[in-house]
Amino acid sequence: MAGENKARSNREIERKFLVKWLPDDLKRRRHWIIEQGYLATESAGRQVRLRKTGKATSLTFKVGRGSHREEREVTLSPKQFAALWPGTAGRRLRKVRYEIPCEGLLIEVDIYGGRHKGLVVAEVEFPNNASCGRFEPPSWFGREVTGEKRYSNVRLALN
Amino acid sequence: MAGENKARSNREIERKFLVKWLPDDLKRRRHWIIEQGYLATESAGRQVRLRKTGKATSLTFKVGRGSHREEREVTLSPKQFAALWPGTAGRRLRKVRYEIPCEGLLIEVDIYGGRHKGLVVAEVEFPNNASCGRFEPPSWFGREVTGEKRYSNVRLALN
Repeated sequence: MAGENKARSNREIERKFLVKWLPDDLKRRRHWIIEQGYLATESAGRQVRLRKTGKATSLTFKVGRGSHREEREVTLSPKQFAALWPGTAGRRLRKVRYEIPCEGLLIEVDIYGGRHKGLVVAEVEFPNNASCGRFEPPSWFGREVTGEKRYSNVRLALN
Repeated sequence: MAGENKARSNREIERKFLVKWLPDDLKRRRHWIIEQGYLATESAGRQVRLRKTGKATSLTFKVGRGSHREEREVTLSPKQFAALWPGTAGRRLRKVRYEIPCEGLLIEVDIYGGRHKGLVVAEVEFPNNASCGRFEPPSWFGREVTGEKRYSNVRLALN
């Protein structure tokens, strides 16, 4: 799999919410431990992120803020990842991500660990603007925090 | 070569100079066209750079300023490079690099193209601090510009 390329170069449309309570069946959902760290970040949401999801390792470039972002991601070989990961020291976070299918969409619930223990955030990605606009949050969603810097992963990793 | 890792994770010791005149035999030296662009840059010299040297493609993470920098570099497959390169739009530069061996050291002469046409810079990398301190610049070297932001590749690419 070394150097295999994940062809994903697109604009993301997503919304982010705090979570009032966790769904009862959460533990039965597919979930992974995610570790991620940032090599470099700029204003305007420009960032280069390394991520390890289970054994899968990747590098992601993002630019833009809020519900619309440009994102470019490539799979890294374990050696590539190991060579770059030390550059993220002091800029990392760890979370468990649960996937919950919901009315044709996918809700990703992130339960943060370490110094952000207690923080739970739900993200939903949409195929287009119309779908994004008409989304009705389920009852267990709390306040919408789309685009709030305080809840961005970059900010959480740097703080 | 996909995903092959170039094991290079170290501290660089280097000095940079302007060039008063080009050595007569320059055209006979080994040289390459280098295209590079920056995915993200921060203060304190933190940056993620993509580079194409001939057909070789790489991603380099750097942090630190002046003559001492931490650098981590991995070779990218052509597909990985192609997926990430568009993220450097508007933050690129192009130069021809000549390699000139000199008293056990290697001088790299960069002749910039595009909007920086006319700029020529020489860089020397040293194996240790002692070698760095006792270096006597050849007569064709001009003013030393080590650590001057104005001549950093990041600044040149962004301006």
